[in-house]
Amino acid sequence: MPILVYLAGPDVFLPDPQDWAARRRAICAHHGLQGVSPLDDLPDEPAHWAALPEWRRIALRNEAQIARCAAIIANITPFRGPSADVGTAFEIGFARALGRPVFAYSNTAVPFTRRSLDFAAAHGGSIAGPGGVWRDADDLLIERFGLCDNLMLHAAVQESDGALVLPETEAGHGWRDLSVFERCVALAAERLCERPSPAPLAAG
Amino acid sequence: MPILVYLAGPDVFLPDPQDWAARRRAICAHHGLQGVSPLDDLPDEPAHWAALPEWRRIALRNEAQIARCAAIIANITPFRGPSADVGTAFEIGFARALGRPVFAYSNTAVPFTRRSLDFAAAHGGSIAGPGGVWRDADDLLIERFGLCDNLMLHAAVQESDGALVLPETEAGHGWRDLSVFERCVALAAERLCERPSPAPLAAG
Repeated sequence: MPILVYLAGPDVFLPDPQDWAARRRAICAHHGLQGVSPLDDLPDEPAHWAALPEWRRIALRNEAQIARCAAIIANITPFRGPSADVGTAFEIGFARALGRPVFAYSNTAVPFTRRSLDFAAAHGGSIAGPGGVWRDADDLLIERFGLCDNLMLHAAVQESDGALVLPETEAGHGWRDLSVFERCVALAAERLCERPSPAPLAAG
Repeated sequence: MPILVYLAGPDVFLPDPQDWAARRRAICAHHGLQGVSPLDDLPDEPAHWAALPEWRRIALRNEAQIARCAAIIANITPFRGPSADVGTAFEIGFARALGRPVFAYSNTAVPFTRRSLDFAAAHGGSIAGPGGVWRDADDLLIERFGLCDNLMLHAAVQESDGALVLPETEAGHGWRDLSVFERCVALAAERLCERPSPAPLAAG
């Protein structure tokens, strides 16, 4: 039986999403996992979904794909702001509630607090209040837990005994580098397949 | 038995989170619901959680609070970018996977596509490609489904037979207006309590 892993992330918004999904699936296969992309067909999809608006069909399919996978591997690279894509965050929460291990990676190693402070600086500024607490221009607290993103995402990885993988330096890897993804896949494979991992497939 | 609803949202980042939670709980109570804030104590919290780092304890408590609630009422007002707070998105996904109805509200009625285009315009611009598809400076697609946010959030409301409540005009309501929240609570109460709703408590 193949071990299915759901590949969450804003990668579906790239200009060549099918080719990109194929590259990611190949990396998963190299490590003994079957990657499931949000673009993949759902086996035995209920016939009446065909009549639904596209956005509802996509959402139902993604939920069903997560439910039939053994784990989620989520791209939490910051997306239009200091945090991950909210669709990806939703899917991490969905997988977590189903008891699936959460593996996550980001193509930036810049800490979440610094990303949030940088964003605030560019949008009205931020101020330091009592107790070293920083607030943005809307008077909303900036989290300072030293994590990779909002604590719910980071904790989902931790509590589910998954893994979080970041680049080794703060130089951003953009949207087209699969080396951090592959390190995350390798860790997921080690945990899910319980056998040694092969050498990487993707170039660094 | 009180009907518990989990109050998700970045409201916890406001400078007076406990007072604010009390105001939101009062609105829930007025409509026959018991609001549960992420700041509330968890009944029978496992003793060993006391030794965990604060961020892990908060996350575990939030997950446990969602699990004991009948529904979630989520503040999806855009937070540091065009989309909702990712912690809130995570919690919506968590609640959805547990089969809880998802009620959501936003203090802005500006459509998600326009918010995303505005954000892109301020961050490197956007370009229109073939088929009327818009892409940001990272070449990532801008969703155009006419929804309130990423399709996973919008669909969670729809598929769970919840409700989405927005302001009646595009004038932003900021972080300190509870009128949209109260309309959402009233709809949740109608669905969960199956009895008529009282007149609003919050000033508009």
